[in-house]
Amino acid sequence: MNYSIVGTGAIGGFYGAKLAQSGKEVHFLLHRDYEYVREHGLQVDSVDGSFHLDNPKIYKSTADMPKTDCVIVALKTTNNHLLPDLLPPLLRKDTLVLLIQNGIGVEEDVQTMYPGQPLAAGLAFICSSKTQPGTVSHQCYGSINLANYSAPDIKELVCDFQDAGIKAYEVEYMLGRWKKAVWNMPFNGMTVALNTQTDKLLAFPQTRQLIYDQMIEVIETAKALGVEGLEYSFADKMIDTTIKMTPYSPSMKLDAEFHRQMEIEYLYSKPLQVARQAGCPMKKLEMLEAELKFIEQQYL
Amino acid sequence: MNYSIVGTGAIGGFYGAKLAQSGKEVHFLLHRDYEYVREHGLQVDSVDGSFHLDNPKIYKSTADMPKTDCVIVALKTTNNHLLPDLLPPLLRKDTLVLLIQNGIGVEEDVQTMYPGQPLAAGLAFICSSKTQPGTVSHQCYGSINLANYSAPDIKELVCDFQDAGIKAYEVEYMLGRWKKAVWNMPFNGMTVALNTQTDKLLAFPQTRQLIYDQMIEVIETAKALGVEGLEYSFADKMIDTTIKMTPYSPSMKLDAEFHRQMEIEYLYSKPLQVARQAGCPMKKLEMLEAELKFIEQQYL
Repeated sequence: MNYSIVGTGAIGGFYGAKLAQSGKEVHFLLHRDYEYVREHGLQVDSVDGSFHLDNPKIYKSTADMPKTDCVIVALKTTNNHLLPDLLPPLLRKDTLVLLIQNGIGVEEDVQTMYPGQPLAAGLAFICSSKTQPGTVSHQCYGSINLANYSAPDIKELVCDFQDAGIKAYEVEYMLGRWKKAVWNMPFNGMTVALNTQTDKLLAFPQTRQLIYDQMIEVIETAKALGVEGLEYSFADKMIDTTIKMTPYSPSMKLDAEFHRQMEIEYLYSKPLQVARQAGCPMKKLEMLEAELKFIEQQYL
Repeated sequence: MNYSIVGTGAIGGFYGAKLAQSGKEVHFLLHRDYEYVREHGLQVDSVDGSFHLDNPKIYKSTADMPKTDCVIVALKTTNNHLLPDLLPPLLRKDTLVLLIQNGIGVEEDVQTMYPGQPLAAGLAFICSSKTQPGTVSHQCYGSINLANYSAPDIKELVCDFQDAGIKAYEVEYMLGRWKKAVWNMPFNGMTVALNTQTDKLLAFPQTRQLIYDQMIEVIETAKALGVEGLEYSFADKMIDTTIKMTPYSPSMKLDAEFHRQMEIEYLYSKPLQVARQAGCPMKKLEMLEAELKFIEQQYL
């Protein structure tokens, strides 16, 4: 398959560059650092081995890009209102759209925009950042769970990722999304609400218990929705894993620090709505949503 | 009755001075500003009329004070560990101890210290402060609800307060304490958690809803405990009343600002424990407790 990357940031830049490096045809949509990359190429500084793309296929607008077999959307969900303008030039009827984005309900909304379009979800477990133009820094992890939402299948996608040296696994859609939410919902918001990092939240007994309670809220909602294979013990596992990580600021914490819009809609509002509809309100996470909205309106 | 005041601050100083001004014998325990008051007397700057006590009966230690008919405890509950040392010199067997303090469970714990001692609760609705030595500033309100906990009756106490020009009402103990908690629990903690004031919390729809949800949690716990006369509409009334107030920082917000210990124990931990025991956990207020403890340990 050939690929286009919508959102060549810390995530889209990393996976796109890995695919290109493995010999795949990859078209990158760039924004601020288009001129820089045209001159200097795209650099990936990675714990798994750094590399450089001398002449990546780059574009300033999707209008100039070819239609491809797969479009990887790696924008923040706060920019998903741009998709109706960005995507049409890239899509054939059978183009697979892979959404590497945070939260619950993304595929549902994109499917409403493009009925019948084959969609898949990408759940990245990676610490990477893009703070300099044309340079992606990959600090740790890097695996990605790929989940089929409405494509005939995603076997070729998984193979291409694996051939590119990425630890890619196919997972069931609902299980994949809700498992990710177990980590995302407590840690993204709580590091903002208490202006702190993952390690301090887990070192203090009361906030560690609160994080655990919030994880259980997510797991109970997933169970109410009929998701199979997500057990209560997964909360303990996530907490143990996070304790072993270096002190970490999730993406929402960085958004708050830099006074950018936070991904409250898909990380909180949508799943909270789903939970209420399932008769299983996530009360502590509802409170967190209100706090985050209050914090955001103070700086936006 | 004659009186002694343990904790001559913004609350104890105000009500004690009003009683003294009305002709009652009042003995004041002072701490930091003992020397100042000995020289200059005690000043009350009040919206209801300022006055000055030229020669109040003041003491540096309860060991030097006489036993009185009524002891008014107006310490912060964070200092209640001092009561076993402070109170004994002041108490006859029938001395009424009036606890003008915040929270749930104060009387229960003081009764355990002094079994058989007649106790009453004072629920002050007052904006007052003591920022200068020897001077209480009373900005607004000033009424007090008095509730019998374990005295034969508190009629004389109520009369003495009323004779001193204080709007004093006798209320049922459980109803009085839990009604106060409906306001106290949401606003004290949320102004700290979001570093804001009452007006901003209520001007923003999501936090206004959160405050309302938390008030309903308190009301539901009170109902589960069999408290009569506390209806859901009381939450709406408290929100409307607070919207009409000038922007306000509750006492816990001031404690946080000045990096003093917060009254988390009696304002949150005790009532939350009572609620869990009643099978009616207050989940959003549990989350608030965890956030407050996290914030406090960062500066204490």
